[in-house]
Order: sequence, then C-alpha cells, then structure tokens
Amino acid sequence: MPGTRREIDLYRRRLLAAGAAAGAAGLSPAARAQGAAAAAKPLPPFASFKDADRLIVHSASGIETKREAFGTSGITDTDILFVRNNINPPDASITANPDAWQVEFDGVTTPRKMSVADLKRLGLASVAMVLQCSGNGRGFFGHKASGSQWKVGAAGNTLWSGVPVKAVVAELGGVRGGMRYMTSTGGETIPPGIDPKTVVMERSVPWTAMEGALLAWELNGEPIPLAHGGPLRLVIPGYYGVNNVKYVQRVAFTEEETGAAIQSSGYRVRPIGQKGTPGQPSMWEMNLKSFVTHPAGNAPLRAGATQVHGVAWSGESPVSAVEVSLDGGKSWRAARFFGPDMGRHAWRQFVLPVRLGAGSYEITSRAIAEDGEVQPELRVENERAYAHNGWRDHAVKVTVA
Amino acid sequence: MPGTRREIDLYRRRLLAAGAAAGAAGLSPAARAQGAAAAAKPLPPFASFKDADRLIVHSASGIETKREAFGTSGITDTDILFVRNNINPPDASITANPDAWQVEFDGVTTPRKMSVADLKRLGLASVAMVLQCSGNGRGFFGHKASGSQWKVGAAGNTLWSGVPVKAVVAELGGVRGGMRYMTSTGGETIPPGIDPKTVVMERSVPWTAMEGALLAWELNGEPIPLAHGGPLRLVIPGYYGVNNVKYVQRVAFTEEETGAAIQSSGYRVRPIGQKGTPGQPSMWEMNLKSFVTHPAGNAPLRAGATQVHGVAWSGESPVSAVEVSLDGGKSWRAARFFGPDMGRHAWRQFVLPVRLGAGSYEITSRAIAEDGEVQPELRVENERAYAHNGWRDHAVKVTVA
Repeated sequence: MPGTRREIDLYRRRLLAAGAAAGAAGLSPAARAQGAAAAAKPLPPFASFKDADRLIVHSASGIETKREAFGTSGITDTDILFVRNNINPPDASITANPDAWQVEFDGVTTPRKMSVADLKRLGLASVAMVLQCSGNGRGFFGHKASGSQWKVGAAGNTLWSGVPVKAVVAELGGVRGGMRYMTSTGGETIPPGIDPKTVVMERSVPWTAMEGALLAWELNGEPIPLAHGGPLRLVIPGYYGVNNVKYVQRVAFTEEETGAAIQSSGYRVRPIGQKGTPGQPSMWEMNLKSFVTHPAGNAPLRAGATQVHGVAWSGESPVSAVEVSLDGGKSWRAARFFGPDMGRHAWRQFVLPVRLGAGSYEITSRAIAEDGEVQPELRVENERAYAHNGWRDHAVKVTVA
Repeated sequence: MPGTRREIDLYRRRLLAAGAAAGAAGLSPAARAQGAAAAAKPLPPFASFKDADRLIVHSASGIETKREAFGTSGITDTDILFVRNNINPPDASITANPDAWQVEFDGVTTPRKMSVADLKRLGLASVAMVLQCSGNGRGFFGHKASGSQWKVGAAGNTLWSGVPVKAVVAELGGVRGGMRYMTSTGGETIPPGIDPKTVVMERSVPWTAMEGALLAWELNGEPIPLAHGGPLRLVIPGYYGVNNVKYVQRVAFTEEETGAAIQSSGYRVRPIGQKGTPGQPSMWEMNLKSFVTHPAGNAPLRAGATQVHGVAWSGESPVSAVEVSLDGGKSWRAARFFGPDMGRHAWRQFVLPVRLGAGSYEITSRAIAEDGEVQPELRVENERAYAHNGWRDHAVKVTVA
C-alpha cells in the first residue's frame, strides 16, 4: 500500500544511510523559549471550557496538553485534550442540533445524503484510540519548522462512539468497483475569494481504512464539542489526527487521492527545504511511540522511591513492551503495563518503580512492538517536522536533591 | 465468607419461597412523582462543577445521572457521575494540597501514618470499575423506603488510579495474624455532641478485598474532587459504593467488624419493617445487573431501525452475555457487546439493532454471568430498598408512532 508508515520507515532508513539524521538530536533552545512564551495566551472562545492551567496555548488553533497533566487513568479528559485546526471551525450553531447534521456519501452503489439521526439507526460502535497531531514533537526539532511547537501533548487517548463506516457502506450497497481511497471533506466555511482546493479540509486514506473507521457523534461520553469536530467526526483508529476529518460533510470512495492542497502537498514527509508533492509519504498510520509522563521535569524530585510512568502506542503492530532508561539510553529496564487494556488503538500506560539517589537523570522510554520493531533513538529530519518518535528528544531531565 | 452477595441471594431465595416478593413489581407512581419534583433542586456548592441538565438532584447528598445521559463511550464523565454522601463532606480546603493528606495504617506489622506523597512512591495501579450506590433502584420499590429515590443513575463506570492497598501493606510488613476485616474510616467532621459511632463513615469488608483495592488520588484522569472523596479514597472494585470510603484517614485490619452504626445496623438487607442488625447480609459485593440506556423513554421514537443499548456488570462472576426483550420479558434476543472491554469490574456496553413498528414496547435487558447466573426478574423486597437488580422494574416503556 502506498504512503503508509512503512514508506516513512523506508524514508527514515534512506536518511539514516545518508547520515542526514546524525547530529542536532538535542532540544532546540529556540523552540523551548517559544513554548514558554506561548503559555500565556488565552483559550479561544470555542475551547473556553478547557482547563487552561493544564494546557499550553500555542495559538487559537494549536492547544497542547502539558506533560504532567495526563495523569494515570488512561483516558485523556476532553477538558485537557489537545486542539488543532487547520482552518477556522464552522459557526458553533452547528452543534445545537447534532441529529440534523447532514453527510453525503459517494462512490458507493447508491449515493445519498444522511442525517446524524439516520446514522444513529444504522449501527453503533465505540473505540478507545490515540488521537495525535502529525506534528506532535515538532518543538524538539532544530530547523524552526513552522507550526505549533508541540512537545509531547498534541496527543491523547480518547473514547469515540458512532456508526461504523462499513455499516453505512453496507446500507448503501457497498463501495463501487475500482475505488482505492476513502476521501472525506470537512464542513468548514471556505473564505470568499480563495480557491477552495488550497484550504479545504479534505483527506484521502486507503479505502481499507474504512474497516475500523467510525462516523462519531460522541467523545468521552458527551456529544462531540465543536473544538473536536462535532456534531460529526470521521475517526480512523491508528491514523494521524489530520485524517480524522472534523464536521465531516462528505465521505466518498474515490479512484484517486483528492487534489486538495492538504493532501497533495500538505502532510507529506520530505527533506528539509523541499516542497510537498503527491509522491512523498503521506501522514497516515501513526508510528511506534512512547513517552514518560512522570517525572515531567516540572517539579523538584526528592530522593528515594519514585514511580516512573508514561504511555505507549502504535498505529500498526501493537505495543508489546516498554523499556525505561534513567541515563539517557545507556541502560534500559523493562517497565510493566498497568490499568485497563482498551484495545490495540488505545495507548497503554506503563510504570517502572525506581530508587533515585541525589544526582542528575535523563529519563526516557522506548516502546517495542509485537512485530519486533523498537522505537528509534533519533527523529527523522523532515521539512514539516512530522512523525517524531525518537526517544532521545522525548527524554526528561531531572535533578534529584 | 459471611455477608457476601451469596448470602443476599440466599435471602432472596428464602423470600421467593415465602412468596414475599410476589406482587408490587410495577413502578411506584409516588416514587416517580418524587423523582420529577426533585429534578428542580440546585446542585450543592461542592458539586457545582457538574452538568445539571444531565442530572437529577434528589438532595444535596443525592445526585443521580439521567438514564439518557450515560452515552455510549463506556466511561461516565465526572461531570455527570452520581453523588451520595452519608454525612456532610469535610471542608473543601482538604483538596488544596492532596499530597499532604495523611492516612493511618493499623493492624499491620508496623503501623504508621503516611501522606499521599508517601503513597505515590510505593506503587501505581489503575482500574476501571462500576461505582454504584447500594440503594440504586430504590425508586422502583413500592414501600416508600427512606433515602434518595434513585432509578438507574446512582451508578457509573469510572477510572481510578492510586496505590494498591497490598503494596502499602507489604511496605508495612504485612497484615497481623487473626485479622478478618479491612476497616476504613472517612475524614468527615463529626458534629459536636453526637456519639461518633452513630455517624462516622467507617466500613469493614472481608480483609481479602484488599487484593484489588486501591488508595486512589485520581478519578477519570484528574485529582479526585471533594464530591467524590478527594484527596484520597479507598476504592474496592466490585463492592457497593458505601465501602469505597471517601477522604479516607485510616485503614485498619481488624478482628471484628467496626461497631459504627453504618456497619452494624446500616447497609443490612432485611425484611420490610425490621431493624438492621450485624447478623444480616451486609452490602458488600454488587450483584449481577444491567439496564437499557436507549431508548430511555424521554423522547418520542420514530418507527424503523433503532439501536437498543445499555450497560451490564457484576461484582462477582463476570458478565458473559446480555439479552434484550422488547415485550416485557415474554421473549428475549441476544445482544452484542461493543466498545473496549475495560476489565472484569467495569461495565460492558451492549447493543441490539431492532426494527420497531408503531406500537407500545416494554424494553429491558438481563445479564448472564460466566457462572450461569441470570439477572432475576424481580426485586427482593427489603427494608432499605437495596441491591435492586430485577429486570422488570428497570424496563423502559416506549411508544413508537
């Protein structure tokens, strides 16, 4: 299948072979400063219900969960879940009567429009899954890629419920022959005088991704708020956030990927300085990743026993183990999973009890997948600073007194 | 083991044999009216953060989730989780610095006090579990038992994290010989001039319940709010709410059950009109239960396809299947589980797609446990209206136009 994580991994290996990923593995002081300065910004009106103290507001369209805010319950509460919008959300009035929202289906035997009320009759499913922005970890890169300088918190583990896309497709007579992509369109208003293709939120994924996809009307037990794509959002377990189209108004099975800029040139992995093109890997399945959430480096640590904990997930082969290092990767110890296993698209929580004497520590984690893959040490340098899963940059520096 | 659900079941069978449970199986109009009138009361200050529109406020110490508010994500958001206090909660200032809260341990080899900060060093676990008031379903009884007239919503599926009690016990050298109970004490202020034994929140459970118990500081991803027992609550997966002692300030392993009224005479299952005594079954493990959350009977239903869904759980043998009836129990159809399986103490969500023509329906569900037990049709009449799991009273009457 073109453009999957495997392609990104091939890209990674090419880069590594060329030595392009060597050096510059440390934190960017500029990015750190930018993060700190951004923390003082107010929440935008559509996200005013959120808990500002536990968030970093990069901008009105980029709001990050603080590392220390994730807690240990397994699910990321909506009050602290990150927000990322590519263009302004529609008017809040669209969430007043969620059941009335209409979505159009095409590329099926009998194309038609359906309301959310119609969809609620067709089927019901619920999934726990990681939602993560493609650029999560951008703040660790050194080349000043534009966009929110996320560290770890443009990700969360969330519960969605809605109708399985495949149940809707079955109702509409199945996918038409020859279709290779599921192409979904968001309901944002295109500003007048702008070529829609340059800004429309329209994403294509391999059509087989419909297997686990939901058209969801509920997030964490409540109707989806506007900030997270309500009244209806396409969620594709295992895929980066951008593919989870908010305010979804059209789902079409298509022969080709959409020509929208966000697909054809946006969210493409390519070398620094290059423009995005359709031939480059697209941000589809999420790679293998973990990070430590405690210690978070935000508070002094007393000597003695400490529970080092964090989260691990993968969009492909499931996570089977996590190791923790206290010395910046020189040595590793096996952590243990704790809490409910919410399924292969959720994150697992891990913990390692340690005893820390006075001194300096560089604490990080690496996930290991069922297929044997190990979370890599280094980021893959790329123009838009996507897909960062290198364990070195994600380390927390801690001083124990 | 004395006083477990098995004893309550024996009690049930005795009553059934005596014919005491026959008749009066319908809804109590008085109780229904009481519920409706109570809905207009305001939220008390310590629960002011909650979503009043999705709750029924019986009193400042009894707040219920509406049946239609549970949604389909699997976890009950803290904003809609029921509240039940037996006496007034402590001052809100105790949650200002959770790590400073102290809890005393006794009945172990080396008794001592520990702060929450100390506990956080000793271990970490997280559990998804149903929290349910012993009196949930009281509003369906016909004999006007005192207390909140709960229907279905004095229950929720919640995520807790904290330290395993057994990790603390191990740190303190183990439980002393001869101890048969784990006896825990809440931190509420005893009003002056009152014999503490008459009001203290002190509960004993079989000491083996420590196996799955946590001393929890986090609920659904956030520090436990005062309304739910923060800064520290004892949670015992599978046990009725009252045993999950809030603001816990002492955990002792004891030879005998506490003499506190809430243990010796309170939360005892006995015939209507009788006083509570230590010999009667205590409200410990929860029985096998399910109820439908949609349709909820709160909105008109259009003819055609509908997804009937609900929740099912048990404090003992895990739920293995759920059946749904549309005709008040004359016929049953197998429902299907959906969403994440969060472990044996969580509730499972079930769904049955149906086609409903115009007419009247009485929709209900019954859970079946791994050990073959089937959720019963009728409630067990008892003085305090506890432990209601009869499927008939929990039915929803629906008219389809």
